[in-house]
Amino acid sequence: MRRSQLFIKTRKQTPADEEARGAQLLIRAGFIHKEMAGVYSYLPLGMMVIDNIKQIVREEVDGIGGQEMLLSTLQHPHIWKSTDRWDDDKVDVWFKAALGEDSQVGFGWSHEEPMARIMTQFINSYKDLPVYAYQFQNKLRKEVRPKSGLLRAREFIMKDLYSFCRDEEEHNKYYETVASAYMKIYQRLGIGDITYRTFASGGPFSRFSHEFQTICDVGEDTIYYHEDDGLAINKEVLSDEVLADLGVKREGLVEKKAVEVGNIFTFGSRYSEPLGLFYTDEKGVQQPVFMGSYGVGVSRIMGLLAELLADDKGLVWPAVVAPAQVYLIRIGAGGELEKAADNLYGQLTKAGIGVIYDDRDERVGEMFADADLTGLPVRVVISDKTLKNQSCELKLRSSDSSQEIPLTSVSESLVKTLHD
Amino acid sequence: MRRSQLFIKTRKQTPADEEARGAQLLIRAGFIHKEMAGVYSYLPLGMMVIDNIKQIVREEVDGIGGQEMLLSTLQHPHIWKSTDRWDDDKVDVWFKAALGEDSQVGFGWSHEEPMARIMTQFINSYKDLPVYAYQFQNKLRKEVRPKSGLLRAREFIMKDLYSFCRDEEEHNKYYETVASAYMKIYQRLGIGDITYRTFASGGPFSRFSHEFQTICDVGEDTIYYHEDDGLAINKEVLSDEVLADLGVKREGLVEKKAVEVGNIFTFGSRYSEPLGLFYTDEKGVQQPVFMGSYGVGVSRIMGLLAELLADDKGLVWPAVVAPAQVYLIRIGAGGELEKAADNLYGQLTKAGIGVIYDDRDERVGEMFADADLTGLPVRVVISDKTLKNQSCELKLRSSDSSQEIPLTSVSESLVKTLHD
Repeated sequence: MRRSQLFIKTRKQTPADEEARGAQLLIRAGFIHKEMAGVYSYLPLGMMVIDNIKQIVREEVDGIGGQEMLLSTLQHPHIWKSTDRWDDDKVDVWFKAALGEDSQVGFGWSHEEPMARIMTQFINSYKDLPVYAYQFQNKLRKEVRPKSGLLRAREFIMKDLYSFCRDEEEHNKYYETVASAYMKIYQRLGIGDITYRTFASGGPFSRFSHEFQTICDVGEDTIYYHEDDGLAINKEVLSDEVLADLGVKREGLVEKKAVEVGNIFTFGSRYSEPLGLFYTDEKGVQQPVFMGSYGVGVSRIMGLLAELLADDKGLVWPAVVAPAQVYLIRIGAGGELEKAADNLYGQLTKAGIGVIYDDRDERVGEMFADADLTGLPVRVVISDKTLKNQSCELKLRSSDSSQEIPLTSVSESLVKTLHD
Repeated sequence: MRRSQLFIKTRKQTPADEEARGAQLLIRAGFIHKEMAGVYSYLPLGMMVIDNIKQIVREEVDGIGGQEMLLSTLQHPHIWKSTDRWDDDKVDVWFKAALGEDSQVGFGWSHEEPMARIMTQFINSYKDLPVYAYQFQNKLRKEVRPKSGLLRAREFIMKDLYSFCRDEEEHNKYYETVASAYMKIYQRLGIGDITYRTFASGGPFSRFSHEFQTICDVGEDTIYYHEDDGLAINKEVLSDEVLADLGVKREGLVEKKAVEVGNIFTFGSRYSEPLGLFYTDEKGVQQPVFMGSYGVGVSRIMGLLAELLADDKGLVWPAVVAPAQVYLIRIGAGGELEKAADNLYGQLTKAGIGVIYDDRDERVGEMFADADLTGLPVRVVISDKTLKNQSCELKLRSSDSSQEIPLTSVSESLVKTLHD
């Protein structure tokens, strides 16, 4: 895309009402707009990052049998009353609005209940199981203290997957399948090495749930991990008893701040029984469906990547989520140079490489600063000087050194560079 | 996809709480699930229809310079108070919820205000104009009388585009560009011939707005049109004065029920002035940005297509929005037949043709009924009988006659059939 066609502009000034560096940079670079505390809109480049993260998550969840759907935001109180999760003293993040004179409607902060209710239409027999269904959705939560930009928001984009199994055994197998798929997602996003599967609070059907926590200084969670065995524990469940049960010694545990990028829960019949989600087993006996749910915070991951990878000059996107791969700068004007730059833009686009082509009538320093702030993996510069050698200058965002590449082989070099 | 892997099941029974045939069929075929009056969730096949409609709209809106973004659902009262659209007696479809003790939050039913506010960050000079920005979003509206399934819902998916121009002249040009793009969208969806651009109520900056109305018996709007000149008028603006101004005679006007599938509005400075969206023109004078907004009802179009095209047997999807192109039925079992059917499924999928492969252990009559109810454009049947001739039977959903096609040339025939 041509920079001159994008309506966004970068800002020099750090927004006064954002503490987290990631959110500051996302706003300064024009990826997001703050509507109010904990509420953001996604501008075109931010939208592309969200779509790229979603696509990675989608591929991995489709790969383990997930069927994509889209549930409503508006929630009828009835089904949530049946599981005792409607009252504000049971769930304190509900947004609720008047519908008629005596009736209310809720706004979806999670979707176990509606998902289970939908499945009562389709699950009757053991032959109908297992079922895995998911969605990407805007969750709305009345957070008292939204903070750190996209890391704890009142409105956020989440992938929520729900599993419906015959019994605990079938569930446990899928639970591990999801855990593996999640680690693949984090690996693809480039945060696999600093993301730990942690033991977290459980519920009526399991002693623990598990979270996926990415080490990050601004994280609001605290985790403890052993570097050797990779075992990690959330602070809130750390006790002598738990350590003994897990066979872990307190010595060697390292304390770190972390951001929760995913969670997996075992619910058993917690929601299926009150909502009437039963099936008939091989012997003709009615059984409650065994449920699990699995979240990945899509917009939170965007905020986390901004936070984790940025440097003093701006954002640094991994190639897989960047809104484009190349920030192409043309220094100077003149027919021949413009033609060469336009050609290069065309050549890269044709090779399937996403390009932001800075074709603005702008000072060189500004364009370089904007390239750094925007954080695309590669910067390509073409000028009268490089054109004399029929070349351009290629620099990785994550590196300080650049190299000159013949114009005839830029696409080739880039494809190689981006795959390395 | 294999039918046995899809969790949905069809229903014989017509849902008692839906009056519109389209919504009844969408529910019976397992495309949508009713959460409450006017609120629906999209099941996997329904989600694919929504995605296909979105993609057509996206291509046409991108083609006229639209930049895609995603605004928040949560709305701060402040900006809506500045345009006097927060109070319930000014806008009666607001859902509002408590945020803190003394504060409220609204849920987006339209996005002129937040979109204009975002643009105050980026538009300063005439050089920054025009800007065209859009989104696909779940709109939430407290409709008193939701009806006809997806045709008038409390939660619905809409494409909303906003234009920001220097002046009325620039705006008017773009307004017509959008109108043309909309007609292309309706043509691609197969409803171009029965969709009219109508004169509708205007506002402070234009005598009329325009709507795009598709003739449909269950529509809740009434329009009048002249078949000859294609001119059409919404009932609410029909008067002798208007007819005289438009140079239309009352004789020859045909009254029809219709569904509004799009609208285009001229707003001028209605929102830009109170929100402080100004720019400096070539002479250094500050001017309000001239705004327009343009909607397409994505989920409503899904409901409309279901309503319009269905027959006694079920849904009939146009190829461009169908969740898949082919409903493949295997009649009978046995190694050789199963292998041939699997091969055919593989061959079609490889050719880029979407297939629902009914591989269930189900009665033939049921599979045929499900194929009709689901409404994919083409049904392909393979059986021992057809296999004897190394062929299969191909039938269009919209036709009663079938033809036998050699297995070796099914993909080829289908590509040809689907493009005709």
